[in-house]
Amino acid sequence: MLPIRDALDVISGKWKVLILTSIMHGNRRFTEIQTSIPKINPKVLSKELKDMEEHQLIKRIVHDDHPVLIEYIATDYSRSLKKVMMELHSWGVNHRKQLLGK
Amino acid sequence: MLPIRDALDVISGKWKVLILTSIMHGNRRFTEIQTSIPKINPKVLSKELKDMEEHQLIKRIVHDDHPVLIEYIATDYSRSLKKVMMELHSWGVNHRKQLLGK
Repeated sequence: MLPIRDALDVISGKWKVLILTSIMHGNRRFTEIQTSIPKINPKVLSKELKDMEEHQLIKRIVHDDHPVLIEYIATDYSRSLKKVMMELHSWGVNHRKQLLGK
Repeated sequence: MLPIRDALDVISGKWKVLILTSIMHGNRRFTEIQTSIPKINPKVLSKELKDMEEHQLIKRIVHDDHPVLIEYIATDYSRSLKKVMMELHSWGVNHRKQLLGK
């Protein structure tokens, strides 16, 4: 069961899926990502971005401008999570019905 | 993205997937489940079992014997998680390769 734990470690928590979705939808700047996710704390966002970069889900690109421009993009590899996320999504939709239906 | 969060809330954490798998494999008594999962703390196991019962993944059955016999079984509903768990598993296997391969 360790691979399941590995996978959960990467995507668990309150924010990672929301952050990844935001970046996949084209938000590239820190402030854009922050604005797109209600109530996220900048310190938390910063930590999560670092985590996700380590797991190769996103790439941090530093453009050598003045002032320096930093952008985040989703890696091709991050798209491998798509099926997992779709399964989780449909299970989550169903689970809400299940709990309310009883 | 809220359904994904819902789903993650139900299966996240260090133990839930391991506990569910143990019960699905036929461990029914608290001590059996505990023994099957190295290093799990009984208090934690007890809390997780309650959580999983609330989410209808397991059922707690009290047999009116002397002494009272308590068993846990996986619900039919819990099998709906199978596809999610398989996707997480194969992504986790692949992710380990991805991180080691670089």
